[in-house]
Amino acid sequence: MNIKNSVTELFKIKYPVIQGGMVWASGWRLASAVSNCGGLGLIGAGSMKPELLREHIKKCKAATALPFGVNIPLMRGDAEDLIKTTIDEGVKIVFTSAGSPAKFIELLKKNGVISTHVAATVKHGIKAENVGCDAIVGEGVEAGGHNGADEITTLCLIPQLVDAVKIPVIAAGGIADGRQIAAAFCLGAKGVQIGTRFAATVESSASDVYKERIAVAKDDATTLAFKKIGLVRMLKTEFALRVLSAENEGVSSEQLKEILGSKREMQGIFNGDEKEGAFEAGQSSGLVKSVLTVKEVFEELITCYDKIKI
Amino acid sequence: MNIKNSVTELFKIKYPVIQGGMVWASGWRLASAVSNCGGLGLIGAGSMKPELLREHIKKCKAATALPFGVNIPLMRGDAEDLIKTTIDEGVKIVFTSAGSPAKFIELLKKNGVISTHVAATVKHGIKAENVGCDAIVGEGVEAGGHNGADEITTLCLIPQLVDAVKIPVIAAGGIADGRQIAAAFCLGAKGVQIGTRFAATVESSASDVYKERIAVAKDDATTLAFKKIGLVRMLKTEFALRVLSAENEGVSSEQLKEILGSKREMQGIFNGDEKEGAFEAGQSSGLVKSVLTVKEVFEELITCYDKIKI
Repeated sequence: MNIKNSVTELFKIKYPVIQGGMVWASGWRLASAVSNCGGLGLIGAGSMKPELLREHIKKCKAATALPFGVNIPLMRGDAEDLIKTTIDEGVKIVFTSAGSPAKFIELLKKNGVISTHVAATVKHGIKAENVGCDAIVGEGVEAGGHNGADEITTLCLIPQLVDAVKIPVIAAGGIADGRQIAAAFCLGAKGVQIGTRFAATVESSASDVYKERIAVAKDDATTLAFKKIGLVRMLKTEFALRVLSAENEGVSSEQLKEILGSKREMQGIFNGDEKEGAFEAGQSSGLVKSVLTVKEVFEELITCYDKIKI
Repeated sequence: MNIKNSVTELFKIKYPVIQGGMVWASGWRLASAVSNCGGLGLIGAGSMKPELLREHIKKCKAATALPFGVNIPLMRGDAEDLIKTTIDEGVKIVFTSAGSPAKFIELLKKNGVISTHVAATVKHGIKAENVGCDAIVGEGVEAGGHNGADEITTLCLIPQLVDAVKIPVIAAGGIADGRQIAAAFCLGAKGVQIGTRFAATVESSASDVYKERIAVAKDDATTLAFKKIGLVRMLKTEFALRVLSAENEGVSSEQLKEILGSKREMQGIFNGDEKEGAFEAGQSSGLVKSVLTVKEVFEELITCYDKIKI
């Protein structure tokens, strides 16, 4: 994987492999491990209050001298505080998702932050480019967690995004092995963002139950739930099946919000509660066969990628 | 696209590009045009009675000296008659879909027919191999028309299928350009099956209204409907939006069957009725920018593919 391109240059990384920011899984330990392997680690601020984020950034800086970033979901009420904390700590790479980057781009740019936005449609990718983002993550519906309503897959989204924008496109959603990295490059992506494969590593802060469920998952292990109030991809745990059954009976948005309640992600990913928690995970789960260290994952990705000939 | 592999050898074709059998779009004219360009054309028997299929096979034989095949959806009550007609006419390539090939494989094999089955999950791919199929089409949820309930995407399905079976895997679902063909090969596929791109050609028997809708479609132009009674991907026409709205209100399977009624595909694809017809189409619609001849499509696919370097 001897690649020098717009993504490796932009982030000053060895491999164009970015670890997706994931709630309850990607703290400083995972992010620094990924950066130390030559990829770009991201602290997932989605499950952190500003002061906890500050602590993770400080620990990440102590654990790696290489570039890392922070992922900030903009639907968070305190998104601005998270961004300010990130800037205050001198982090120069921010990935924003789940909302419009327009409101925050000025703040980010005037502080010299490289800004990448996650888009699930061509329209949102173009918007991100127009407001001044430096790169786009095109995230297909294979991805774990929150997804766009149009359910566009990585295979279809990436070439259309690449045709529509000039800034680099990073492919995300469903990618867990080197064959898929090569495929993403064929589609025109200049980098990949990988979530689930890294969520099931030793350095991930997810619970062991969660990691094991990923490791035994088959191709059909995930489902999309909460269509009426915002699509989420998760493993078919007891909780997920309960949601699907309620949706099948035609429950209202209000009822769905009640079923969702709060802290389902923490209960699932962090606590490993299969009965009450949401095990957010990507469709790539079926390709993850064991819990590995981040270093082992990189070795696998690179070895597999380097074998591809077309 | 100078490729010699298990798929080009199996079907004795120049390019490992197969045109998907599609109701109301892929008659003898489309199938023979694809075969004459060096791919494998398939007559879609899904919208034909046995005698009409016979007529199409005869015309296809007259129009090309090169190999072509027939796609037979096994959910059809008269699937056996369609298979017998195909065998009777001396066609040696059959693609089966939407059902189990176990019941028919003996009949096909003893008549020397190369049998390929369409699978939407790893489990069904393994079953097809075990009963004796010669190849598998792994079809991701990007595909137009009927889809598997697990909604596995091409990017995730193909590498898992390739790992699970020994026979050649052909990638289908979402593929409309050369970048995606290259991506499919990276994933381990030995060929691709392309539907929607060929449905929007001059030689397709679909209506002009349907073809034009594909040509103007964006990335978010399709949806999955009829989840309770069998997922179908179609363009978001007036009919489709009516179905989605009813589903959103929680209608029962019985009510959905009533809404579906009969002949929706003919009304949509063949008659071009946007109000009452189902415009079955793949998520790749957004990549199709104009109605071309089959020859022009092949030129585009090959030119684009040959540019890919990874």
